[in-house]
Amino acid sequence: MTAVITAFASSPDRGRGLARDMRVRWALEETGVPYEVRLLSFADMKMPEHRARHPFGQIPTYEEGDVTLFESGAIVLHLARRHKGLLPDDAAAQARAIAWLFAALNTVEPPIVDREVATLLEQGESWYARRLPALEARIGTRLDDLSAALGDAEWLDGAFSAGDLMMVSVLLRLLGSGILGGYPRLSAYVARGEARPAYRRAFAAQLEVFTAAQEAGQA
Amino acid sequence: MTAVITAFASSPDRGRGLARDMRVRWALEETGVPYEVRLLSFADMKMPEHRARHPFGQIPTYEEGDVTLFESGAIVLHLARRHKGLLPDDAAAQARAIAWLFAALNTVEPPIVDREVATLLEQGESWYARRLPALEARIGTRLDDLSAALGDAEWLDGAFSAGDLMMVSVLLRLLGSGILGGYPRLSAYVARGEARPAYRRAFAAQLEVFTAAQEAGQA
Repeated sequence: MTAVITAFASSPDRGRGLARDMRVRWALEETGVPYEVRLLSFADMKMPEHRARHPFGQIPTYEEGDVTLFESGAIVLHLARRHKGLLPDDAAAQARAIAWLFAALNTVEPPIVDREVATLLEQGESWYARRLPALEARIGTRLDDLSAALGDAEWLDGAFSAGDLMMVSVLLRLLGSGILGGYPRLSAYVARGEARPAYRRAFAAQLEVFTAAQEAGQA
Repeated sequence: MTAVITAFASSPDRGRGLARDMRVRWALEETGVPYEVRLLSFADMKMPEHRARHPFGQIPTYEEGDVTLFESGAIVLHLARRHKGLLPDDAAAQARAIAWLFAALNTVEPPIVDREVATLLEQGESWYARRLPALEARIGTRLDDLSAALGDAEWLDGAFSAGDLMMVSVLLRLLGSGILGGYPRLSAYVARGEARPAYRRAFAAQLEVFTAAQEAGQA
């Protein structure tokens, strides 16, 4: 059965792979599930038809048979539980991989988003320069711990899992900030994620949306 | 088998049930899993013994047999998958309940935490009064959508689930802010959560830790 996901018709990240549909595309590619993409404008996202899929009017969503889901974390976990490739078979190891998925979304990503929001919305404000060091210190605390937990391993807990998929996706938001440069182990970890064939296929597919829209004069 | 969780020996919330062990205690009570609590000081949380359980040196953690987990979302989900009481049997409904759990943690909680952090750390700063309306507007957007999704239903999607447990826990962080007062449906939803016998047992247990520490002169 072919899954249908939703994504931005015109992504604010200009095809850099940072919109949250990328996490779902990557999981679909890792698990080999065929999918189609329904592209939505910002106006489409707020319409009742899409609200029925996503109560907060966002992307991505996931539809397959009788299942309709929102929240990229839930969609990635759903794919990981239904298909081979993103979770170990052993029950205890599986629970740990899921803990890393939550850690990516709830412990590592929030301070990264806070810095992004400040940079987007408050860069012109008088307080921006005073808040920034505190925001970056909170990111640094998380990255120190994450780097220590990873150590010299390839992935966070044994084989590549949904936890790594989400953690690499979250760390990719730091590209361009210069912050990852201080963490060689994490930089190499992110590069290993980006080198995976499934990641590359997913990245190319989301970039193609941006390129096509630009050529059509829509971006 | 008895599970062992970790919690603050002296919770910064002074027994108001807002520390994240409360979410796990509530899930343990809903599922009827017996548990013991290992209380940790802030110094204990940064020691190697606890870091082995929790890479970011936080609470709560969960140990049962060969399973050691961190991240309250992952622990609640683990309990919900292993025991009756927090997830529907139907596969599609189960996936939707898990989507609400992620929505609580990733879509609704972040702007609530941002407001808390600003109130804790920036109340004395000149910019606090100018930032606050934007922070509260972001919370309002989420609550508007959540209230519309809940409508006049008792719980978010059929019977009470792990998604409701987490959403109520997140909304409880707004108590004292006055914000929930503008959302009668959500206020009633939170009250229904607090009225559950399992919630009340969990709340009493975490309050007892605070009261005992205070009596011993530690709080």
